[in-house]
Amino acid sequence: MTPRPVDTVISAARDFLGDRISTNNALREQHSRGEDTTTPTLPDAVAFVATTEEVSRLLTLCHAHGVPVTAFGAGTSLEGHVNPVRAGISLDLSRMTAVLEVNAEDMDCLIEPGVTRQQLNDHLRDQGLFFPVDPGSVCTIGGMCATRASGTNAVRYGTIRENVLGLEVVLADGRVIDTGGRTRKAANGYDLTRLMIGSEGTLGIITKVRLRLHGIPEATSAAVCQFPTLAACVETVITTLLSGIPMARIELLDEVQMGACIAYSKLEGFSPTPTLFLEFHGTPASVEEQARAVEAIAADCGGTGFAWATDEQARKKLWQARHDAYWAAIAMRPGARGIATDVCVPISRLAEALLGAKEDIEASGLIAPIVGHVGDGNFHTVILVDPNDPQEFERAWALDKAIVARGLALGGTCSGEHGVGLGKREFLEQEHGAEALAVMRGIKASLDPKGILNPGKMFRN
Amino acid sequence: MTPRPVDTVISAARDFLGDRISTNNALREQHSRGEDTTTPTLPDAVAFVATTEEVSRLLTLCHAHGVPVTAFGAGTSLEGHVNPVRAGISLDLSRMTAVLEVNAEDMDCLIEPGVTRQQLNDHLRDQGLFFPVDPGSVCTIGGMCATRASGTNAVRYGTIRENVLGLEVVLADGRVIDTGGRTRKAANGYDLTRLMIGSEGTLGIITKVRLRLHGIPEATSAAVCQFPTLAACVETVITTLLSGIPMARIELLDEVQMGACIAYSKLEGFSPTPTLFLEFHGTPASVEEQARAVEAIAADCGGTGFAWATDEQARKKLWQARHDAYWAAIAMRPGARGIATDVCVPISRLAEALLGAKEDIEASGLIAPIVGHVGDGNFHTVILVDPNDPQEFERAWALDKAIVARGLALGGTCSGEHGVGLGKREFLEQEHGAEALAVMRGIKASLDPKGILNPGKMFRN
Repeated sequence: MTPRPVDTVISAARDFLGDRISTNNALREQHSRGEDTTTPTLPDAVAFVATTEEVSRLLTLCHAHGVPVTAFGAGTSLEGHVNPVRAGISLDLSRMTAVLEVNAEDMDCLIEPGVTRQQLNDHLRDQGLFFPVDPGSVCTIGGMCATRASGTNAVRYGTIRENVLGLEVVLADGRVIDTGGRTRKAANGYDLTRLMIGSEGTLGIITKVRLRLHGIPEATSAAVCQFPTLAACVETVITTLLSGIPMARIELLDEVQMGACIAYSKLEGFSPTPTLFLEFHGTPASVEEQARAVEAIAADCGGTGFAWATDEQARKKLWQARHDAYWAAIAMRPGARGIATDVCVPISRLAEALLGAKEDIEASGLIAPIVGHVGDGNFHTVILVDPNDPQEFERAWALDKAIVARGLALGGTCSGEHGVGLGKREFLEQEHGAEALAVMRGIKASLDPKGILNPGKMFRN
Repeated sequence: MTPRPVDTVISAARDFLGDRISTNNALREQHSRGEDTTTPTLPDAVAFVATTEEVSRLLTLCHAHGVPVTAFGAGTSLEGHVNPVRAGISLDLSRMTAVLEVNAEDMDCLIEPGVTRQQLNDHLRDQGLFFPVDPGSVCTIGGMCATRASGTNAVRYGTIRENVLGLEVVLADGRVIDTGGRTRKAANGYDLTRLMIGSEGTLGIITKVRLRLHGIPEATSAAVCQFPTLAACVETVITTLLSGIPMARIELLDEVQMGACIAYSKLEGFSPTPTLFLEFHGTPASVEEQARAVEAIAADCGGTGFAWATDEQARKKLWQARHDAYWAAIAMRPGARGIATDVCVPISRLAEALLGAKEDIEASGLIAPIVGHVGDGNFHTVILVDPNDPQEFERAWALDKAIVARGLALGGTCSGEHGVGLGKREFLEQEHGAEALAVMRGIKASLDPKGILNPGKMFRN
């Protein structure tokens, strides 16, 4: 009997990976999906790579034998990106965690893709620098690049797209390219860096990332403000942005999510009402000026209890609560899994999108707290579902689709930051149109003619 | 005799363009190159298009008959982009000047590609909004997208890349795609917007641009500071950026350029020494705080005569002088043309790059003032050449190559903002390597299989 192509690859890869390529069942199960609710698929093997050369050699093999390769970082994807739906190799980059260079004068660094935001910021702190993009989960920066992630700081510092100077990428056939240099800007050919960012492992495997860094602001202050209605929250956000106040973070929690956070993170002195979490960066004087300006806007909109937190401990507690919002939501219903929507709309349509989502949630009878990066017009509903109740799953997906459909009708996108993966494929053509999708497919065919890189994702076949 | 393919296209296009497609010699000459020093090439015809549909119909024809199409905006390209080196049709989009939408709450707008920065800002002023990207020439925004332009404000507001939400693009075969939506961020498929930005008319023709706008800052102040040496200027820039001061503009003029500007723009009270032009945006208090902080840094570095200009007239005069730097340089040698270098390096290498360029200029015996967007590590030398002296041209190109070669050796790029066009093709492979260039060529082949869009540019054949 001729061996399966994947067995040929596994056997050949043992030459350079040794026992770092494994068919162990527990490892395969760990690599069968992310934090999503997709049906798990076991890869044929998991490969823990350590160097660009190993990735290149492995891809050369997979390309030669037509074996699928699905990149895996921290496994925090919410859209099924790391689910190896056509089996093959799960390429785990989480052990590539070296910080290779930090150039303080240029405010840039070069890292391996398995480095996490937290790890990088711990490394940078002594040099007065930080990496701002903060999706709130313990994800790898390689994964953030692949999914075009953003998070709470994007309103001020941009998404990962604006904070990557260049990438080292291994192409489907094992060739290695460098997509960018060290300069802050360049007009030197097609923007392969931005093409790779958000390509979700379908065009190449990211093996190094050169990031733009920022100086730690001289002063930081956080504030929380509570509102009688969601509409009042959104009005405060729009007025603040139009005033040109350079918000570092402006995050919304609806009353359900705020209630969950109060319980989960033991926040004291807050009510379960619509709430904004705010952060200001600057000099001590400008931070105070910004906060006072927003306080006045919030008061005009009916906000109350504008509570400041300038000391680091109190700020950390607040933002930890915000970061744990997903887990606080899940904790509302022990044993549940969360289906996260990720609609992003023009700011002027945010109130409609949010209030419409609230109505849909109420009509559905499901529990689905709302949390949002509202400075960017992006919000999430975490729909809590019983993983053993297929009917409830169906109702949850119907709710998800209703919220996305309204977002699209309001000029928005199905995904502000989580990506397409498996879960949002059906919306992609609706958003871009058949011709733009054909261009994307043409690019995919040009870079990965055998379709071995994360097959089944982004496009419906 | 069978007609030439281009004659077939011209004849068929008259059906919908009438006399807006022309073979008039004066018009063809006007479209034979930009502000560059390339050898002019006459297009077979010039087409003044008015709508997306016209562009689509014309490209459908050109695609069917294999006729080259070179987009033309204001003709301000410095790298030969608009020189139709293989003749065919010069597609002039400069009459598409409608501002189609302004959404003040969302701080975005939709424009046709022939709109200029000045025209847009005049249109926006009443709404308290502005479009920051400012290359300093009277160029079209479509052209700025095509060449990935930036300019004096990029240090604060980013380049055109960060300020475009989406594009309408006509593909080589006449299909029309929309590359982006109205949201501030999206993780919804390959980033076709960024792929088109900087593609220099080789992947598609931009027919609409959706731009991100910014609020006009409450307060603006400008300052000028003069230094004994270029090194002191650069030291001030690096220290300022590391301090996290959110500079709106920070521009360097060497003593030759400053002398030229004093003469051309009748600036009073300044000496022909290395000079920084600075601008601060914010609230009145924060602008004053920023300016005082930079004044202190400059004084530490040996800067003198930190002169403020908070009133609008004085500020306008200063920035007009900076904008006219290119013309001031040209005026140093009446009848000369300028060859502009556009090196961009990591900030930490800026002093080396600048001082090395100065040495090369002195060794060459040519006149070449230096002006730079130093907050981004980008500087230009304008090498003044007698258009009728081929030997001087050769010396000028040798100087240009020496300055670029040093920039590349310092981790920089051959082009920060002017683009590749004809002039920088030889450096592209050097910068990116053969494999990355092969990826770019693959994308080009996928989107423009017949190679009709701006042939001969970006890649050497």
